[in-house]
Amino acid sequence: MDTIDPNLSQLQALVRAFQGFRWEGVELMPYKEEGSAPFKAISRQTLFKDPALACELRYFEMAADGYSTVERHEHAHGVMILRGHGHVLLGGEVRAVKPNDLVGIPAWTWHQFRATRGEPLGFLCMVNAQRDKPQLPAPADLAALRATPAVADFLDGRIG
Amino acid sequence: MDTIDPNLSQLQALVRAFQGFRWEGVELMPYKEEGSAPFKAISRQTLFKDPALACELRYFEMAADGYSTVERHEHAHGVMILRGHGHVLLGGEVRAVKPNDLVGIPAWTWHQFRATRGEPLGFLCMVNAQRDKPQLPAPADLAALRATPAVADFLDGRIG
Repeated sequence: MDTIDPNLSQLQALVRAFQGFRWEGVELMPYKEEGSAPFKAISRQTLFKDPALACELRYFEMAADGYSTVERHEHAHGVMILRGHGHVLLGGEVRAVKPNDLVGIPAWTWHQFRATRGEPLGFLCMVNAQRDKPQLPAPADLAALRATPAVADFLDGRIG
Repeated sequence: MDTIDPNLSQLQALVRAFQGFRWEGVELMPYKEEGSAPFKAISRQTLFKDPALACELRYFEMAADGYSTVERHEHAHGVMILRGHGHVLLGGEVRAVKPNDLVGIPAWTWHQFRATRGEPLGFLCMVNAQRDKPQLPAPADLAALRATPAVADFLDGRIG
């Protein structure tokens, strides 16, 4: 662990929430660099990122019919749904999610979130500050995922 | 690092939220060992604790008029209010909090949460898995805190 000078901490004492899942002074960011991976209508806000914390806490939100990238990586995610209803792909399974549900995404598990219910889907995601880069599925990976009919329906946006 | 409870050693794919800020299979725990420190009417639920995650995510909830311990420590907290309204002591300041507000608690900052609004106050707390033990205020520390009238009111439960 790095040596931290507590006087250098960037932790804000109080960051007020606004209506609509925005926070005072927290920039609404693109989910990822445009063109770097497939995704749709999703934004990112970083709520906690500080040298004194070994994890970051981010808030991601998809508009209705939006989705995150199908990806996997060595690092894990701890997710809590904060807004709306939708579905998540987790390995070979598709599960419905609602506010306050927890989604644990272990290492190397293909995952994708989709706002399948005609409303925004927003979630907190806790992740290690030090982590590897996500992998995208190769054609053979997608073919293996699609072998499960419910997963193929999910990937093609036919669940909702 | 603590020995990991085998029941928590694997990330659960989906942990469903129930009404009232409870989660499927997540035990409602005492906040701390009874008698170890001053606190009132507060519970703890561990939402994410896994060797693959460098932080834990816990949910603490106070009943109306409940409060956490006044304490400080080297490790930092990243807090998001999830339920209800109340107040937080942060160093020499008392601030009102509402749902989705973020509270960053830097190293060595005295802090306490209080359910001052006649309703439960619940919050998420992200914290490093490896961390030091909290310190309680000595009489001189309390006297220094009480030198600020708003803080003395807060500590004596006169804000609400």
